Amino acid sequence: MEIKLFSAQTYVERRNTLKKTLGKGVVLLLGNDESSINFKDNWYPFRQDSTFLYYFGLNLPGISALIDIDNNREIIFGNELSIDDIVWTGPQPSLASLAEKVGVTQVLPTSKISDHVSNDTAYLPPYRPEHTVKISQWTGKGIASANSDYSVPLIRAIAQQRSVKSAAEIDEINKAVSITSDMHLAVMQAAKPGMKEHELVGIAVQKAAENNVHLSFPPIMTVNGNILHNHYYGNTLKEGQMLLFDGGTESSSLYAGDMTRTYPVGSKFDSRQRALYDVVIDAHSAAVDALKPGALFKDIHLLACKKLVQGLTQVGLMKGDADEAVSAGAHTMFFQCGLGHMMGLDVHDMENLGEQYIGYTESLVKSKEFGLKSLRLGKKLEKGFVVTIEPGIYIIPELIDMYKSENKYADFINYKELESYREFGGIRVEDDYVVTDAGSTLLGTPLARSSNDVEQVRAKALEPVAL
Amino acid sequence: MEIKLFSAQTYVERRNTLKKTLGKGVVLLLGNDESSINFKDNWYPFRQDSTFLYYFGLNLPGISALIDIDNNREIIFGNELSIDDIVWTGPQPSLASLAEKVGVTQVLPTSKISDHVSNDTAYLPPYRPEHTVKISQWTGKGIASANSDYSVPLIRAIAQQRSVKSAAEIDEINKAVSITSDMHLAVMQAAKPGMKEHELVGIAVQKAAENNVHLSFPPIMTVNGNILHNHYYGNTLKEGQMLLFDGGTESSSLYAGDMTRTYPVGSKFDSRQRALYDVVIDAHSAAVDALKPGALFKDIHLLACKKLVQGLTQVGLMKGDADEAVSAGAHTMFFQCGLGHMMGLDVHDMENLGEQYIGYTESLVKSKEFGLKSLRLGKKLEKGFVVTIEPGIYIIPELIDMYKSENKYADFINYKELESYREFGGIRVEDDYVVTDAGSTLLGTPLARSSNDVEQVRAKALEPVAL
Repeated sequence: MEIKLFSAQTYVERRNTLKKTLGKGVVLLLGNDESSINFKDNWYPFRQDSTFLYYFGLNLPGISALIDIDNNREIIFGNELSIDDIVWTGPQPSLASLAEKVGVTQVLPTSKISDHVSNDTAYLPPYRPEHTVKISQWTGKGIASANSDYSVPLIRAIAQQRSVKSAAEIDEINKAVSITSDMHLAVMQAAKPGMKEHELVGIAVQKAAENNVHLSFPPIMTVNGNILHNHYYGNTLKEGQMLLFDGGTESSSLYAGDMTRTYPVGSKFDSRQRALYDVVIDAHSAAVDALKPGALFKDIHLLACKKLVQGLTQVGLMKGDADEAVSAGAHTMFFQCGLGHMMGLDVHDMENLGEQYIGYTESLVKSKEFGLKSLRLGKKLEKGFVVTIEPGIYIIPELIDMYKSENKYADFINYKELESYREFGGIRVEDDYVVTDAGSTLLGTPLARSSNDVEQVRAKALEPVAL
Repeated sequence: MEIKLFSAQTYVERRNTLKKTLGKGVVLLLGNDESSINFKDNWYPFRQDSTFLYYFGLNLPGISALIDIDNNREIIFGNELSIDDIVWTGPQPSLASLAEKVGVTQVLPTSKISDHVSNDTAYLPPYRPEHTVKISQWTGKGIASANSDYSVPLIRAIAQQRSVKSAAEIDEINKAVSITSDMHLAVMQAAKPGMKEHELVGIAVQKAAENNVHLSFPPIMTVNGNILHNHYYGNTLKEGQMLLFDGGTESSSLYAGDMTRTYPVGSKFDSRQRALYDVVIDAHSAAVDALKPGALFKDIHLLACKKLVQGLTQVGLMKGDADEAVSAGAHTMFFQCGLGHMMGLDVHDMENLGEQYIGYTESLVKSKEFGLKSLRLGKKLEKGFVVTIEPGIYIIPELIDMYKSENKYADFINYKELESYREFGGIRVEDDYVVTDAGSTLLGTPLARSSNDVEQVRAKALEPVAL
């Protein structure tokens, strides 16, 4: 698929920055291959590796690239189409002409790559088995070594560079989030009691296809919003339930969007739903207000946790001092995951490079505690970081039973009241922000978020249609 | 995703048949893992390996199974969910309880698999790099050997068994083709001049999602039907063009459907389009009439080629004796691919086992000639085979130029007339059939196929909507 490229100069400058940071050595960046579904030539939609895209822009399967810092040159490796291929695919531009668009002048067939790769070549952690196989074949390393011998200095250099988004990148992310917002509005306007979750997934994927883009991750579309990684779409929507939709699309340049909305299947939240929804919105707003360069994202996460605890205390589900509750971890009864993550070419930006390297620093190590261990981003924010803010309240019956049996957090949790919420479900509200000098800016077309605004969209969606 | 299973007895019998055919040894069948898109935990929709599904039914990622013929036992290898997993995914049935549904009593953790696998264990050709890595790790073979040391007797035994579909399987394929047919009708009723190809892909994927199933392969949706493997969806539909849509969905039991229709973007074919369309339909009908147990599919392919040549001669694009033209290969100017392929759990059924083993026999070797080398199925049909019939006419400008410059097939091709068809595009009409004692039966809900019927649907689709 042809995608929107930046100028050749952009890629040249990105590579020059990387060369300067590393100073020496040879870097191998692996593009992705086609991924087979159930036989070799039946492929999933192709997705290029994001680091490859960042430095080399080309959205073709089966190519790789070297940045040879010692000899100040770059080479793209790939195979040109044969005349036989062209009968099947139509005429295609040559690899050399494509390479030119990203400022690379040297192109070699893939068979030559092992001549240029040695045991010292720096590469990134393989997250696809094809990468492991290639590294093993080109370097002669065994599979275990191929998987573990990646370069930490390379990870750090790339993480630092890709974390701060340029104005042009922010434009692209903004477009992705706007398509994402349109997709959410379409679903919010289509959901009706009696529909199946998968029918709404159908509306979401159609909206993406209408824009000729892919989803940035498999969507969560569920009336059981308390199941955090829910990809089952078989339930029927019923009046009285809430629907949680967590979904995003890419832009035509493959940057990601990621939003979540939770709303009544009917036109109004019931009083308990509305109360907890407003608690989530308060935590969301407090977190957004705290976004600014220099702030520790871990602190903003803990601030949101405190807001959730304060709200849950007002509702009567928690008690005691909010700071003490958060410090003890009692909020994890309701909020088990992290407040947000970086976003860019990947929806969890650079997750393949390792969360410790992307979200933390040498002095700030990721926690192993339940709750904090799921916080993908903890470190100080910088201008140009793009992050999601996605607090939530999730009532997980298995967790109630587990904590209760251990009498865990009994000073902070009203277990008696909580019992009547067992079937409540879950709420998450997620938007995307770029950190600016002044604090932060919401990305994408704004979409109804307050309980009132959401109810207005839902009421309109459920109005009887005039015949 | 939960899928519809057959009875436990079905899987037991299938495995018993395989054991009986092979007689001895140990067979390792690899299930598929999740496939990462751009980082490890961002996954494409999971698709289980079809042979694993056939013998073990379970639609879970990361499991494998052994059929130990020597000791007459089966083992499924996989890992149970931890309590941590359950917080994220909700409660799930245990692997042991799932195994019971497919008649397997022994379940072991994946870490135990290498104790049960040796250098002599029979396995199938790896078509996903994860399979190569696993075989290499479990057997100690290098990557190249892991890829090449597959068992040909195992391939032959499975190919023979999976080729003949049971009544229950034919029911399932019938359902898949009916959803496929509904999807085609939705697109045929939606296409309008001014729309983009990707908007119609959106309608197709929505129809699949509405039925809670996936597409069985990346669809071809194009106004350039002459580009045979076209996955570019950026063109705008224009009056006067034809739209070619080749797409299929799976059923809820993961059997495949596969259909193609070609129709005018406006409400009527022009005279040249209609004439060539009718030629394709004649070839289609002749091929279907020839389907029966004992017939060589290669002969039916050649019969369809002859019908195409006869039609093209009447239209004035070919000349001379039709049999001689086909025997010389002159029809490959217009029809470069094969008449059809087997269909079942895979849309190109068992393509991962190798076309020579699936579509040919030890005495009937696949041709290397242009045209015939793309015929995936050549051998004698048997009752219970499910096949596609998909003749077509494709005007490929690059091929005209190539053949013309070599003065190739000058006795059979009217190059002068053909020049005026350079921009004509392509036509393919594909339906799915099961071979029966009496000949064959069309699978799925019948969909408009003749030029008249197609025009009727299109005229209705383009009627102005009353406001």
